[in-house]
Amino acid sequence: MSKIPKTYIDFRKDFPEVSEAHYNLGKAVHSAGPLDDKTRALIKLGMSCGAQKEGAVHSHTRKALDAGCTKEEIHQVVLLLLPTMGLPSMMAAMTWVDDILESDK
Amino acid sequence: MSKIPKTYIDFRKDFPEVSEAHYNLGKAVHSAGPLDDKTRALIKLGMSCGAQKEGAVHSHTRKALDAGCTKEEIHQVVLLLLPTMGLPSMMAAMTWVDDILESDK
Amino acid sequence: MSKIPKTYIDFRKDFPEVSEAHYNLGKAVHSAGPLDDKTRALIKLGMSCGAQKEGAVHSHTRKALDAGCTKEEIHQVVLLLLPTMGLPSMMAAMTWVDDILESDK
Amino acid sequence: MSKIPKTYIDFRKDFPEVSEAHYNLGKAVHSAGPLDDKTRALIKLGMSCGAQKEGAVHSHTRKALDAGCTKEEIHQVVLLLLPTMGLPSMMAAMTWVDDILESDK
Amino acid sequence: MSKIPKTYIDFRKDFPEVSEAHYNLGKAVHSAGPLDDKTRALIKLGMSCGAQKEGAVHSHTRKALDAGCTKEEIHQVVLLLLPTMGLPSMMAAMTWVDDILESDK
Amino acid sequence: MSKIPKTYIDFRKDFPEVSEAHYNLGKAVHSAGPLDDKTRALIKLGMSCGAQKEGAVHSHTRKALDAGCTKEEIHQVVLLLLPTMGLPSMMAAMTWVDDILESDK
Repeated sequence: MSKIPKTYIDFRKDFPEVSEAHYNLGKAVHSAGPLDDKTRALIKLGMSCGAQKEGAVHSHTRKALDAGCTKEEIHQVVLLLLPTMGLPSMMAAMTWVDDILESDK
Repeated sequence: MSKIPKTYIDFRKDFPEVSEAHYNLGKAVHSAGPLDDKTRALIKLGMSCGAQKEGAVHSHTRKALDAGCTKEEIHQVVLLLLPTMGLPSMMAAMTWVDDILESDK
Repeated sequence: MSKIPKTYIDFRKDFPEVSEAHYNLGKAVHSAGPLDDKTRALIKLGMSCGAQKEGAVHSHTRKALDAGCTKEEIHQVVLLLLPTMGLPSMMAAMTWVDDILESDK
Repeated sequence: MSKIPKTYIDFRKDFPEVSEAHYNLGKAVHSAGPLDDKTRALIKLGMSCGAQKEGAVHSHTRKALDAGCTKEEIHQVVLLLLPTMGLPSMMAAMTWVDDILESDK
Repeated sequence: MSKIPKTYIDFRKDFPEVSEAHYNLGKAVHSAGPLDDKTRALIKLGMSCGAQKEGAVHSHTRKALDAGCTKEEIHQVVLLLLPTMGLPSMMAAMTWVDDILESDK
Repeated sequence: MSKIPKTYIDFRKDFPEVSEAHYNLGKAVHSAGPLDDKTRALIKLGMSCGAQKEGAVHSHTRKALDAGCTKEEIHQVVLLLLPTMGLPSMMAAMTWVDDILESDK
């Protein structure tokens, strides 16, 4: 579960120009303001939890770990969903985050 | 636009027990991990942008300003939506954030 | 605000076969089980609040009033959103419900 | 499938203050109006179907059975989605409801 | 995966009047304008991708193949999501489309 | 209402690198398959209706008109939502499409 999904690897191989243009968009956004790597990683995890996209939560949990975030910080991002989005969205995000955190043990 | 909406003030007056229970939930979540005030504010703004809830983006832009976040940081949170959620969601969030930022000028 | 929206009246006039087929679908669903009118009205209001569709919440608040539901019952349907979907969704639904309830005063 | 999910049990163990605050919010909302247990259970099921949250539909199907709702009532809640939210949302909710109803046979 | 899901077959058997009314609604909508079969199939696939409904993407990928659409056309529909809805929604839709395309090999 | 929104013009001025990277992503996606301009415009309109993004429906209605689509084709795209996403989503999209169609009269 902690590996990059095969569909994403296929997408990069099958549509290299699209994939590169999306990568460049990510770079442009990262350079467009003052936020540091770790804060950006936590915000993008929160954003993915807010959008309730399983694949994005998997990917941004991995990136948060790479940026040096702790398990406690990642779990608190998920808990912050509770007053704003309710229990079912929070529990779903907790499951997705734990898919990655528990495969790294 | 930078004021607390009337519906929310009415809710707190009409349903004080519910409002207090929700406030206590927010407090419990804030104490349940290591994230500091400013990082938490930026994450909750990102979460609200990800969830595409206008009222939440208004409220968390206000709270981010109160926590000492700059306009540049707030705008970058919104820009981070672009690779993950596309242009229309990003433009909508930009409009909502600017509702608050521009009323504070 | 308590009136039927013009767009819906135009739709029924411009696309009468589509409108009639949709009406027949509603009738089929109403006959497909044991729920009484008032319970059905409250469930459909809850469903519309859960789906966060402003037009549906307006329409089903009107229908709930027609089915004999009280303002207190309608407000509690909205409050039930809070633990399940969080404050911003609940506040949005409260605003939409009150659009109708307050225009009936 | 009819059992409480492990992630939820872990959440209650790992974050007891958050879990208790959320429970108190549910209680406050249940006391904030005139709806009886069974009607409330059907509304919350409808709300969860409207929000298209799998975990919430599982949980509120269980609670509807506990409140004395019949399989026919539960199925009609799901059918009510069809004119309001279309076939794919209705079929998804039917699958989730049947996960619980069929595990209880 | 390329077969009609059992839940849908059960729905048509258990609720024939509802199923027939929904079928008639589909027919009314297909006759309500000038779009040809193939264009309509591609639009409905795009719509299902935009709505992020897994079951609808499965069903409309099957119908697009039946209407004579190629694998390249179907993949481009999915790629069109990227600037408008971001990478996670596009990758999810790609997975769902490939569930059907690859079971047909 | 048929004009480009001011927020989008500001975004292009304030964040030219981000805006250009997003433009390049759109171009890459348009070149990544066989669909012609008009079909692509109708699919993107359907996608925006499916995603229920007001700004995207406005923008893609304008682009569909530019690509030579008729008012009847555009209205049928919206009607196709009805069996798949229900009446409230269809009526909302009809309103947004008409914002543009009626401002062009």
